[in-house]
Amino acid sequence: MKKKGTSHMNPINTSTQPMGSKVLAGDIGGTNARLAVYQLKPDGLELVIQKSYPSSEMTSLEQVVAHFLESHQLTCDAACLGLPGPQSQPGVYNLTNLPWLVEAERLYPALQTRKLVLVNDVEASALGVLGVPADDLFCIHDGKPDPDGNRSVISVGTGLGVGILSPSGRASATESGHGTFAPQNDFDVALMKHLQKKFGHVSWERVASGSGLPWIHAFLVNGESRLTAAEIAKQSENNEACAKTLEKFLQYVGSVAGSIALTQMATGGVYFCGGVANKMFTPKRTSIIREAFLEKGRMKPILERMPLYIIKNENLAIIGAAQRALSLV
Amino acid sequence: MKKKGTSHMNPINTSTQPMGSKVLAGDIGGTNARLAVYQLKPDGLELVIQKSYPSSEMTSLEQVVAHFLESHQLTCDAACLGLPGPQSQPGVYNLTNLPWLVEAERLYPALQTRKLVLVNDVEASALGVLGVPADDLFCIHDGKPDPDGNRSVISVGTGLGVGILSPSGRASATESGHGTFAPQNDFDVALMKHLQKKFGHVSWERVASGSGLPWIHAFLVNGESRLTAAEIAKQSENNEACAKTLEKFLQYVGSVAGSIALTQMATGGVYFCGGVANKMFTPKRTSIIREAFLEKGRMKPILERMPLYIIKNENLAIIGAAQRALSLV
Repeated sequence: MKKKGTSHMNPINTSTQPMGSKVLAGDIGGTNARLAVYQLKPDGLELVIQKSYPSSEMTSLEQVVAHFLESHQLTCDAACLGLPGPQSQPGVYNLTNLPWLVEAERLYPALQTRKLVLVNDVEASALGVLGVPADDLFCIHDGKPDPDGNRSVISVGTGLGVGILSPSGRASATESGHGTFAPQNDFDVALMKHLQKKFGHVSWERVASGSGLPWIHAFLVNGESRLTAAEIAKQSENNEACAKTLEKFLQYVGSVAGSIALTQMATGGVYFCGGVANKMFTPKRTSIIREAFLEKGRMKPILERMPLYIIKNENLAIIGAAQRALSLV
Repeated sequence: MKKKGTSHMNPINTSTQPMGSKVLAGDIGGTNARLAVYQLKPDGLELVIQKSYPSSEMTSLEQVVAHFLESHQLTCDAACLGLPGPQSQPGVYNLTNLPWLVEAERLYPALQTRKLVLVNDVEASALGVLGVPADDLFCIHDGKPDPDGNRSVISVGTGLGVGILSPSGRASATESGHGTFAPQNDFDVALMKHLQKKFGHVSWERVASGSGLPWIHAFLVNGESRLTAAEIAKQSENNEACAKTLEKFLQYVGSVAGSIALTQMATGGVYFCGGVANKMFTPKRTSIIREAFLEKGRMKPILERMPLYIIKNENLAIIGAAQRALSLV
């Protein structure tokens, strides 16, 4: 695994935005709500201040936004917030894992601007690929990227979120993680049957995400797993069931990424991000992912040309949201 | 199954093209090479003449193009040819199932114009969705299409070709058909194991295409199948193995379409086309496809909003190529 020396990214064109413009960017998750203000400087967007609030202590998003801006005596020219879950109507989000309804209308007073866009957090992360510092980008397979190709952005966190980034820089969230799990051998088939009893349809998210690790582990130990994803990863060095769990998980991540890359025609590259990707993809393990990624029979030569990256940056969605906000100024 | 009364399509904007412009459109397949000339009239593109040549009797594509234009004393202002197989270099195609190399450079003299684009045939079919007559479009599931959503175009022919059509009208071919087959039950798992012995990696194309039908049938009769896809379909009315083959095939087509639709986020709709889709999807059978399409657990409500269509038109790729050619004028 090596760091990229220089960026090949295409950050948003800032030539038409007024220098000094300030934008509010947010990444609202079930555990934390992160808010940041960025300012446009000659070299690009520069972070002014970022704060994290425990989501459980927040009564409403508009209250936190108002508190954040007021306590730092900041204003913004535009804002973009990345939110978990689907948009139920234009400008309205029902949050996953949070008991709030987020509406653009209610946020305008706190922001003192109507230049606001609410996006899915996977879309924000996909946009973040365009602006992430080159130092945070680890290449785990070289390839020959096509600059005019799509890019797949695969967020391995509690769930499995997948976005497409088009060559023009348009990002969209998809529901790839809910495609049907494709077992390949007797172990996979037995795991699928076990999970079908619990869930009916077994999606990729059930095995190739942070929530998937305990499901695989529970199957392996013939019962309920009391270990978290992080504990399984930690114990994998000296516990057989944990080691096997991690190995299968990494194979599934690689395999689903290969099918996604073929379906989204990600000749521009495949980017892994998210909390689990951030923490668990060590150099030793990336070869398992790579091997499973390439194992698509006659398509192997096409997949070999697609570079694979891991983005180690917890603020990817914030970076993407800041760029999207800047495009509104 | 019902015909659409009116078209909801967005054919190419012809307001900037000179009236009377003539374009050459081609769909070059392993069996037939179809060539057509269209002319721009106030109502849109109108077919002037179309001819089909047996591919096996052609020595080169440039020769046939020259013969076609000369014998009908026609000229063209631009051309687009849909070709099977991947582009090996810009403007160069190595054809699948045909011993030719197709190069743009060699076609210019025959066309008497350099306004030529070579596209993958799946891309041409996807573009054809924008211009196909409303009468050829059969809705097999209603849904609530998002006009700003992607559309998936799934060509079920000898192979399984899959394109994406973006809301802006940009089409691209993908390799979704080579994603990993996802068996769901004991029958599927046994079929997978049988096919793994032959192919190693078992892709969706091995079971959800015209080539897939004889593979499923052979597995069911414990040996080699001597029946073609068309014969299996025909005999499915009074032969148990053929009936079961067809049922499994339709389930696989529906299931892979559902996973593709989630991965491409085809909120604009899913369109089946191609030789097998043209002939085999009768009203009686479409409910099997629809049911398998929707069976993605928690994502069912999202899939239910995606309309499903079958396009019964053998000239879809020609229609798409004609539109693409017109954009060059």
